[in-house]
Amino acid sequence: MNVEGKHYRTIWLKPGNEKTVQIIDQRPLPHKFVIEELKTVEDFEKAIKEMHVRGAGLIGATAGFGMYIAALEAGKENFEGFMQKAGERLKATRPTAVNLAWAVERQLEAMKKGKSPGEKIEIAFKTAKEIANEDAEYCKRIGEHGVKLIEEISERKKGEAVNILTHCNAGWLAFVDFGSATAPIYAAFDKGIKVHIWIDETRPRNQGARLTAWELAEQGVPHTVIADNTGGHLMQHGLVDLCIVGSDRTTRTGDVANKIGTYLKGLAAKDNGIPFYVALPSSSIDWDIRDGVKEIPIEEREPEEVKYIQGFCNGEMKKVLLTPEKSNAANYAFDVTPARLVTGLITERGICKASEEGILALFPEKK
Amino acid sequence: MNVEGKHYRTIWLKPGNEKTVQIIDQRPLPHKFVIEELKTVEDFEKAIKEMHVRGAGLIGATAGFGMYIAALEAGKENFEGFMQKAGERLKATRPTAVNLAWAVERQLEAMKKGKSPGEKIEIAFKTAKEIANEDAEYCKRIGEHGVKLIEEISERKKGEAVNILTHCNAGWLAFVDFGSATAPIYAAFDKGIKVHIWIDETRPRNQGARLTAWELAEQGVPHTVIADNTGGHLMQHGLVDLCIVGSDRTTRTGDVANKIGTYLKGLAAKDNGIPFYVALPSSSIDWDIRDGVKEIPIEEREPEEVKYIQGFCNGEMKKVLLTPEKSNAANYAFDVTPARLVTGLITERGICKASEEGILALFPEKK
Repeated sequence: MNVEGKHYRTIWLKPGNEKTVQIIDQRPLPHKFVIEELKTVEDFEKAIKEMHVRGAGLIGATAGFGMYIAALEAGKENFEGFMQKAGERLKATRPTAVNLAWAVERQLEAMKKGKSPGEKIEIAFKTAKEIANEDAEYCKRIGEHGVKLIEEISERKKGEAVNILTHCNAGWLAFVDFGSATAPIYAAFDKGIKVHIWIDETRPRNQGARLTAWELAEQGVPHTVIADNTGGHLMQHGLVDLCIVGSDRTTRTGDVANKIGTYLKGLAAKDNGIPFYVALPSSSIDWDIRDGVKEIPIEEREPEEVKYIQGFCNGEMKKVLLTPEKSNAANYAFDVTPARLVTGLITERGICKASEEGILALFPEKK
Repeated sequence: MNVEGKHYRTIWLKPGNEKTVQIIDQRPLPHKFVIEELKTVEDFEKAIKEMHVRGAGLIGATAGFGMYIAALEAGKENFEGFMQKAGERLKATRPTAVNLAWAVERQLEAMKKGKSPGEKIEIAFKTAKEIANEDAEYCKRIGEHGVKLIEEISERKKGEAVNILTHCNAGWLAFVDFGSATAPIYAAFDKGIKVHIWIDETRPRNQGARLTAWELAEQGVPHTVIADNTGGHLMQHGLVDLCIVGSDRTTRTGDVANKIGTYLKGLAAKDNGIPFYVALPSSSIDWDIRDGVKEIPIEEREPEEVKYIQGFCNGEMKKVLLTPEKSNAANYAFDVTPARLVTGLITERGICKASEEGILALFPEKK
C-alpha cells in the first residue's frame, strides 16, 4: 500500500543484495518512517519478539525469510540440525501467532526436497518469497470477498457512509500487503463506496491509534480514533454498521484469538445486533484445536508496556509513566472471542459461518 | 483516606479562612500531590470543567461549596438573580453528572429560608458542609453494606484473595471520602479480608491507572493495573470474582451511566456469570428518567484527550502525541449499562436489585 504516495510492502529482499531482508520498523510509526535491515537469525528473532514487525501474516512472512537467512548461516555440516534449531528459536519469539510455526514448518518441509545445502538454500529462498506473495494475494482476495458486505450496507444506507469499527491493526502493516480486516475497506474505498472507520486505539501498544490510523491516513480513508472503551456506546447509538477485526489464531470451530479486547467488542456487537466479521487468511487457522478459550496459549508481555507509554513530543519519541511507580500491572496480549459471537469469517476462499461446518465447506481438504 | 499516612478529604474549608475552599488537584496525580485554593465562582467552574476535581460525589460537594462562595460574591441587590446565574454556570460545567444539578438545587432551595443575604450566606455555608458530610457518611454506609458481598465470596474461597475488578475511579477521590465502589473494598481490607483489585486504566483520562491505583497504593491494598481491553479475558479465565463500579447517573429503573467502557464490562460479567454491582449514593439517582440509553446526555470531550496523553518523565509531566497528527479522534466520556446487566445496586440504605421495584423498596418516599 502507499506511504507518502509510494508503494511499499512490509517486508522485501534488499534490491541488489538478496542476502539481506528489509522491513518497515513499526515501532516509531506513525511519527517516523524507518526501514530496517535484517541480516542474521538473531536480527529476525529480535524483530519479531520486540515487535519491529507484528501481525499474523507478517510474522509468518518474516519467519519465512528468517528461515532463508538461517539457511545462509547454516554450515554444510549438520545443516538440518542447525535449521531445526533456528526454527525453534523463531517459533519461541511469540507464542500465540499460529503463522509463525506454520511458516517455519513449511520451510523445513520444503527444504527436505533439496539434495544439498546449496539446493536447500535455493528452496528456502523460493519458499520465503512464495509465503510473502501468497500472503499478499490471499489478503487481496479477502478484500474482494469482504467488500460485498460493505457494498450491501452502502446500498441499504443509500450511499451514506458505512461506519466500520476495527480493533488493533489487521491492516497491511500486519501482513505483507492489503491487510485482512482492512482489505475489504481498501477495496470499498477504491470502488468509491463511502466509508468511515472507527479505530480502537488498542491499549497497551496502541496498534490502532498508531498503525491503523497511519495506514488509513496515508491511503486517504476517513477515520476516527477512539478509546477502546468507546465501541459499546457507539453501537448502542447506531453509529456502527459493521465490525471487522483480524485474527492471530482461529480454531477449526471458529473461535478467534485476536488482540486483547476483541472479545468485548464481539459481546457489544451481539448485544446490539451488529454484524461482527473476522477477516483472516487460512494460514491463521489452527486445524488441530477446537476450544479457543481453553486451548490457545495467551502471551503475557511485560507489565512495563502498561505502566509506560511512548509518544511523540517536541520531535522525539518519549516514554512517560502512567501509573504510580509502585503499582503492579498485568499485560495479556490476546483474548479469545467464542465462535457464537462471530457473524462470519472472511477468508481468501470466501465468507463462511464461524463453525467447523462452515469452515470445512470452504476447506474440504481439512476434513 | 490516607495520603502518606495522613488523613485527607478531597475538599475542605481552609483552616483559619472559611472564605476559601481547598481541594486536591487531581490532575498531577499520582506523580505529584498538589493542594489548590478555590476563591471565586470562576475558580469552581474551572476546577469542575477542567477536572481538577471529578467524580459524582465530589462534583456535587464542589458545587455545594461553589454556591456558598457564590453567595459571598453576590451583592445585596439582586442576590437571588446572581445565585440563579451562578447555579446555571456551575451546572453547565459537566452535562452528565446528576449530582451537580442536585447540589445546586439543594442550595437554592435551602437559601429560600434565609430572610436576608446575610442569612442566606449562613445557610449556604451550613448546606455546603452538610452536603460534604453526608457524602462521606453515605459512602461509609455503602462500604458497610457492600462488604458483605466480599465477605461471602471470601468464605466461599476459604480466605483466598477475592479478585475484584473496578473501572475508572469511584474511589474516595471521586467523593468526599471513602468512595463508592472502593468503600466495600476498604471496609473488607480493614477487616483483614484478603482482596486483590484489578484496576482498568480507563482511557482516555486514565482515572483508574492514575487515581484508583494511587488511592489503593496509599492505603496498601494489593492491586494490578490492566488495559481496559483485559477484563473480558480475565473473566473468561475465572480471575475475577466480583465487579464493583460507580455511577455518574442512575435512572429510577436501574440503568447506570458511568465512565465510558463500563457497559463492556457489564456485558462480559453477564457472559461469564460474574456478579456486577454498582455502588452509588442515592444523590446520583435521577428520579425523573427511565431509559438511560435514550435519555441520559453523554458528554463529548475534546478529541485532544484521546490523541495526546500525559505522563511523568524525568521528574516532570509531559504530554505526548499517540496518533498521526492529522487523524480525527472522538471522546465520549460515559456510556450506559442497562439494568439487565447489573446484579445489584449498593446504596447508603442497603443493596437492591437494579430495577424500579428494587430501588423504590429502599427509597419508598420516591414512589
